[in-house]
Amino acid sequence: MNERRRHIYLDYNASAPLRAEAYEAVCAALAEVGNASSVHGPGRRAHGRIETAREQVASLVGARPKNVIFTSGGTEANVTALTPRWLKGGKPHALTRAFVSAIEHPSVLAGGCFPADLVEQLPTKADGMVDVETLLARVKAELDAGGRPLVAVMAANSETGVIQPVAEIGAALAGTDAVFHVDAVQAAGRLDVDIAAWQADSLSLSAHKIGGPQGVGALVLGHGDFRPAPLLTGGAQEDRRRAGTENVAGIAGFGAAAEVALRECEKFTALGGEMAFLVAGLRLIWPDTVVFGESAARLPNTCSFAVPGIAAETALIALDLEGVAVSSGHACSSGKVSASHVLKAMGVEEELARGALRVSSGWGTTRADIEGFLAAWRKVSGRLRPVGAGEAA
Amino acid sequence: MNERRRHIYLDYNASAPLRAEAYEAVCAALAEVGNASSVHGPGRRAHGRIETAREQVASLVGARPKNVIFTSGGTEANVTALTPRWLKGGKPHALTRAFVSAIEHPSVLAGGCFPADLVEQLPTKADGMVDVETLLARVKAELDAGGRPLVAVMAANSETGVIQPVAEIGAALAGTDAVFHVDAVQAAGRLDVDIAAWQADSLSLSAHKIGGPQGVGALVLGHGDFRPAPLLTGGAQEDRRRAGTENVAGIAGFGAAAEVALRECEKFTALGGEMAFLVAGLRLIWPDTVVFGESAARLPNTCSFAVPGIAAETALIALDLEGVAVSSGHACSSGKVSASHVLKAMGVEEELARGALRVSSGWGTTRADIEGFLAAWRKVSGRLRPVGAGEAA
Repeated sequence: MNERRRHIYLDYNASAPLRAEAYEAVCAALAEVGNASSVHGPGRRAHGRIETAREQVASLVGARPKNVIFTSGGTEANVTALTPRWLKGGKPHALTRAFVSAIEHPSVLAGGCFPADLVEQLPTKADGMVDVETLLARVKAELDAGGRPLVAVMAANSETGVIQPVAEIGAALAGTDAVFHVDAVQAAGRLDVDIAAWQADSLSLSAHKIGGPQGVGALVLGHGDFRPAPLLTGGAQEDRRRAGTENVAGIAGFGAAAEVALRECEKFTALGGEMAFLVAGLRLIWPDTVVFGESAARLPNTCSFAVPGIAAETALIALDLEGVAVSSGHACSSGKVSASHVLKAMGVEEELARGALRVSSGWGTTRADIEGFLAAWRKVSGRLRPVGAGEAA
Repeated sequence: MNERRRHIYLDYNASAPLRAEAYEAVCAALAEVGNASSVHGPGRRAHGRIETAREQVASLVGARPKNVIFTSGGTEANVTALTPRWLKGGKPHALTRAFVSAIEHPSVLAGGCFPADLVEQLPTKADGMVDVETLLARVKAELDAGGRPLVAVMAANSETGVIQPVAEIGAALAGTDAVFHVDAVQAAGRLDVDIAAWQADSLSLSAHKIGGPQGVGALVLGHGDFRPAPLLTGGAQEDRRRAGTENVAGIAGFGAAAEVALRECEKFTALGGEMAFLVAGLRLIWPDTVVFGESAARLPNTCSFAVPGIAAETALIALDLEGVAVSSGHACSSGKVSASHVLKAMGVEEELARGALRVSSGWGTTRADIEGFLAAWRKVSGRLRPVGAGEAA
């Protein structure tokens, strides 16, 4: 646990530290042997751990346990959902086009198994919210033309934390031939995620964003008999919906983390107070600090900001040397710091976007972490900003 | 660790118990926080664990570390390789047909992303060996017609343990337009696996078969610039060859297990002595015991056998009640005991095939386990076999 002590860790949206409950569940499962598909005692016990986790994960998102399909993570869940090959009652029910918001995670933007020319990105407003009117108009046109579109909108954006109107979109799509997929990776455990209330056909989750282990996630279905064809084929695991020996320890840890996350969802809301303190501190240092998506409802743990003239790439390295871990946006681009596609979609000027830093907190974050970050930021940003720029406090 | 003590565990081919070294590596990684794609200290440290594991896994199969792509397991590795969409130097290099042996793992038989009508199963001989002559003739016909076939043959069969002539097939395919994929999931750590000597273009591995954790595996390439298009798309992880946040703890455990497996590969060979003792014991109990693939070279840890008149399904349950965990073949069919496709391909009569039991040992197996199994088998099989059948000792 050295890491957490050495660094002030404010990068929960990239990966949250493992919850103690999850750690224990993982280790307990690792200490046992058994393939969950084996019929003998050890196999049945492994299977039992998976079914317990299935109930825990289902509870977190208001789903029925049998509608939870465990995957290797949020990316696999998204890629599985994004396919023209859906099945209704086991029979092919082909989709014609994918509409994805421009601020989706890269695994959604890439379109999964949809041919590239059938994936259409839809605009976002300046406040970081999906443009629902344009989205629904495009979907209607596709439906009117006899198509069956898939619509993918995330519940909350990982970079800005802006909460998206998924219940509104779900209500508009209900009863039509459109399929609604919600990437709830950043929302789970942070908002009240309810697949039924959102009227979503599928929803993706990732364990390590809620304090579970990396390498496990889930695709959750709204209706058990309506689902994408399996991406991983072969064995009959996960009720023939996802082949491959189950990651018993990872799944057990995911379940344990889901249970704690659900119980402590209200505590998570309280993180908003620390974020308000952070923003006040940022503006004491640099009054011209820009907070992205500031006017929209946002996750209580996320703040994406920039100070004109300070490049994120340099700032990140300087902060790291000060023992502070934050990010410049999502972490999926393998260390490459490029201007965020999310901020670009919001119409943020490229130079300002290149300065975007994301602070994201979580269950282990204390006021001292935020104060430590602000002290480091004062030092680092004072050194990096051209003399005479802005108005330093 | 109760499980291992309570049960005599002889189902290593389904899942091996976790090695202590792997357990430690997993727990050390779990105790740290960090997304391996993050640029800060914790992220770089997580990244470092992955790169260490990449070297360890590469060493196990004679590959270059940069040619190791971590996946969520053997199934994902197989499904990734089995696609018509290969890339050469980053450019599309489409394949036309897949030839798979009839005894492959279900994730290979299912054909991955190949349309079903482009997947052709090739026959096996009665001894459990792939019929190389027929295979090469079919491949030649496809090549002569201007096609680019993918050929998938496993290194060793999980049910019978029969070792397949992959070096011979690799040599025959070298220099042609055929792509050669080897499922080495059951061979790694048990045979000298050498991707270069086998002249394979890709090779799949699974951590939990060699004492690593479940939920992690690898697709290893023969040549870095010749590879299948990614199955999981989006982020730039694994050098843009497999998107999704890396399972750092699982990968670290895989690496640690690979290192031990390589070091102890010769010890594994010694398990052959225990298997010879097992077979002698089986025939003392029932002289008409049939050992499948007996005339072929087999993995030293695997024995698939049947006694006429004893159904595997009943025997498995009875043995489980005696505290002995074995299997009826591969474990991927979710507890369903049906006649094995492997034995069927070998021409074994269905009734006898339905009696097939697989005993598979590993690094933790002792002579006492084998003796315990034999004592349980004597008891159970004596009860299950019709009176007067065979010649009990």
